[in-house]
Amino acid sequence: MQQILINGHWVESSSTDGFRALNPSTGETREPVFPRSNWHDLDSMAAAATAASVHPANAEPDRIGRFLDLFAERLDANRSRIALVAHEETGLPLETRLAQIEFNRMLGQLREAASAARDVTANSWRSPLIDAESGIRSDFGPLGGAVLTIGPNNFPLAFHAVSGGDFAAAIAAGNPVIAKGHPLHPETGSLLADCAAEAVLEAGLHPATVQYFHQCHPEDGLRLIADPRIAAVGFTGSRAAGLSMKAAADASGTPCFLEMSSVNPVFVLPSALSEQGARIGGEWAASLMMGAGQFCTKPGIAIIVGDGADAFVDAATSGLQEAAPGVLFSGAGVERLAAGIDSIEAAGAVLRCGGASGSPGSRFEPSLLEVDGDDFLKSFEALSQELFGPVGLVVRAGDMEEASRIAARFDGQLTATMYTGDNDDAAWTALESTLRVRCGRLIENKMPTGVAVVPAMVHGGPFPATGHPGFTAVGLPTSVTRFAMRRCWDGVDPRRLPAWMR
Amino acid sequence: MQQILINGHWVESSSTDGFRALNPSTGETREPVFPRSNWHDLDSMAAAATAASVHPANAEPDRIGRFLDLFAERLDANRSRIALVAHEETGLPLETRLAQIEFNRMLGQLREAASAARDVTANSWRSPLIDAESGIRSDFGPLGGAVLTIGPNNFPLAFHAVSGGDFAAAIAAGNPVIAKGHPLHPETGSLLADCAAEAVLEAGLHPATVQYFHQCHPEDGLRLIADPRIAAVGFTGSRAAGLSMKAAADASGTPCFLEMSSVNPVFVLPSALSEQGARIGGEWAASLMMGAGQFCTKPGIAIIVGDGADAFVDAATSGLQEAAPGVLFSGAGVERLAAGIDSIEAAGAVLRCGGASGSPGSRFEPSLLEVDGDDFLKSFEALSQELFGPVGLVVRAGDMEEASRIAARFDGQLTATMYTGDNDDAAWTALESTLRVRCGRLIENKMPTGVAVVPAMVHGGPFPATGHPGFTAVGLPTSVTRFAMRRCWDGVDPRRLPAWMR
Repeated sequence: MQQILINGHWVESSSTDGFRALNPSTGETREPVFPRSNWHDLDSMAAAATAASVHPANAEPDRIGRFLDLFAERLDANRSRIALVAHEETGLPLETRLAQIEFNRMLGQLREAASAARDVTANSWRSPLIDAESGIRSDFGPLGGAVLTIGPNNFPLAFHAVSGGDFAAAIAAGNPVIAKGHPLHPETGSLLADCAAEAVLEAGLHPATVQYFHQCHPEDGLRLIADPRIAAVGFTGSRAAGLSMKAAADASGTPCFLEMSSVNPVFVLPSALSEQGARIGGEWAASLMMGAGQFCTKPGIAIIVGDGADAFVDAATSGLQEAAPGVLFSGAGVERLAAGIDSIEAAGAVLRCGGASGSPGSRFEPSLLEVDGDDFLKSFEALSQELFGPVGLVVRAGDMEEASRIAARFDGQLTATMYTGDNDDAAWTALESTLRVRCGRLIENKMPTGVAVVPAMVHGGPFPATGHPGFTAVGLPTSVTRFAMRRCWDGVDPRRLPAWMR
Repeated sequence: MQQILINGHWVESSSTDGFRALNPSTGETREPVFPRSNWHDLDSMAAAATAASVHPANAEPDRIGRFLDLFAERLDANRSRIALVAHEETGLPLETRLAQIEFNRMLGQLREAASAARDVTANSWRSPLIDAESGIRSDFGPLGGAVLTIGPNNFPLAFHAVSGGDFAAAIAAGNPVIAKGHPLHPETGSLLADCAAEAVLEAGLHPATVQYFHQCHPEDGLRLIADPRIAAVGFTGSRAAGLSMKAAADASGTPCFLEMSSVNPVFVLPSALSEQGARIGGEWAASLMMGAGQFCTKPGIAIIVGDGADAFVDAATSGLQEAAPGVLFSGAGVERLAAGIDSIEAAGAVLRCGGASGSPGSRFEPSLLEVDGDDFLKSFEALSQELFGPVGLVVRAGDMEEASRIAARFDGQLTATMYTGDNDDAAWTALESTLRVRCGRLIENKMPTGVAVVPAMVHGGPFPATGHPGFTAVGLPTSVTRFAMRRCWDGVDPRRLPAWMR
């Protein structure tokens, strides 16, 4: 049985319950057995994290920055091995996706977080305010407990609980992290956590600054979320799992940052559709298949308005039909996708292409479903569900009035997109106020799958896309404040304050 | 029956259920009957607010600023009448508390909010980020629905739902507000709301930008909180009421900013106690009686460490005994306070002075309870409850080790205070890391009752003092971001953007 990382040491879990991962490209079971932790494991981590949260070394911005840089350096030194294991566990392409693009994104985020951790200027995430006249000062600082990070299946490096965006932000804010790996890529997580543990040691932070377990029973996980030693939760994954965690966190008053499901509607406005329907349809199909359709920003639903619909649908269909089946992360994912397509057909949509699983391993054909706007509105709940895989639904809206009614039905989304042509100014305006407040990122004339890691990015949005509309999970240093508290010193002798508050 | 403010008009409630207020200084019932609104009233307000949230005029920073300034101007013109009614309904002193201090604070907040609303610079609460290279831009903007504000009994002007800090912040962010008045001062609320309605009209905002009702049945209020047309909630009041609202908001994913109970522990460290115990004890007694002990920052529990305890307790007792009974807001408040003192005595504390109600109206004697540190730790839950009134509990801790154990028991607080003497550096350090993460505002050598309205103020703190540790309810412009969403434009033609994002 593989070990877990508690308080700086890889140790045996006190649980004897184990699991194995699969290679989804081949369907083969992988060798190592990983423990499914019990409450005893989690309790030990929470206790150690509490000590880390008050350890003086962990209050030093430079030391935190040094850890993050050292961690990135060690990851880079182990790039080929980590990327290969991630490829074997997820089926995502080794080159260039994992070994280059996602790996570099992970390293870049950690290094940006290092800069953010070190930054104590007035423009930093700390937002220090010093009112010398009244003797009142405030800034953002650590939460005083552990941040529990729970990463998704679809970005085994850049969103991993022990190396991804939530991790980087929580550490930069000065918090210890307890990271839960994803059971579909446990060996990847072990390799990442091992680099983190070595960097913690070398940087001289408290050994419990980063702790790691592979999986747990859901009831123990919810108990940990509700435990007062957990100061915040960062979760990326499905809506069902996210809502159960949110309920546990809410009941105990724990801030819980969720990044859940989103169908990312794309509206192709009349002038764009008639002028460039075929091109945009092809672009949509390509975007649907990125990461085998397992991106949280997959544009799952395209609403095309007016004339030119056939050219769009034909181009999208061709694009999807020409592609090989995509490798999903698991057989369970294939089953959920097939069931989702069935329920969407049952609700009135027509399957234009695809719809079947493939082999070896966990494969699924790129698929297209179609429905007209009237039927979409009638069965909105069933038809607007997220399908995690290379599948899209095209909605043919008769006119802008119908498109407006459709836009108003969507709840919170990570993104909403409008494709505009030369004569779509009025159409843009008609939808803008509706869509603007329903998404974190409003996009014009490109697909939402690219999430640039720049400070101005917002990877967030109103519930249920996330748990709170005021934050972003991507884009340092803004993402750091999710894991910070606003703290004030009133009349406190300046020599007792952090250097940047004097 | 008095009217309610829906969509710019004072109209009859569709409810026939009414209530009257009292004058707590005299016990006399006041004349006007106010409606307890039903769902029909609330539903009408939510519908009108939705229209306001997408009204073009409400997206103009200058117009919002103009409304806030006009509102402050009208309030100022009606100062004597409003302050008098507030005095009659609350029993708080007319001069200087209501007519000067709190009134000026209210006006100052509205005017600061006007400046915040107009501010579109890089350093404003909007935090605009423009990445010209990637075409990605983000800022904070309105939530796209109504903010429901629910104010407390204890600041009928500066924290009122229709004129206080939450109101000012929600409006500055560009949101329409539905304000629920407090049933203990309904006429005050009507006068405030009337000024707001006139200013809305004059500024040319949508008439539903400010709507107002006096009271509702709890089930209708919870239904409104859960309604998707409510984009956020701002509440200040009791823990019980706050938690029921939080549960409704959490279930629907609605951000809910609560400012609930806090006992605001004050630690008098050994050197301070031995050197200045009597002076600090007198200061504590005076702070306990501010607003008849009905401040959210009342220092309800003093933990005094080491020698000099008698001087502290004697001075506090004298201070409390010399004062007249305080006027509480209601007879129910008197009953709750008496019951609270009983339960604290039952849990092992000794009543040193006071403990009885008075007349006429709703009065209560300034009271002191005392317990030793060991007993306090044994019955912490019962003894650490908040008592809303002029009552304090002094805890005699034997040494710093015991004081540390006490500090670690407190959950989230608005404030924590340490009084230090010449030789308390080590004692400060021993408690600091424990207290720092348990409170929004850490104070040295003064009582917490004064909450300066400066940008660096934090009136916030970890749960259950508030619902989220990353925010403050006082201190513009920081308080505005509670009611804002982070929104991104990606590749959007600059001419479609707000002027400050181009």
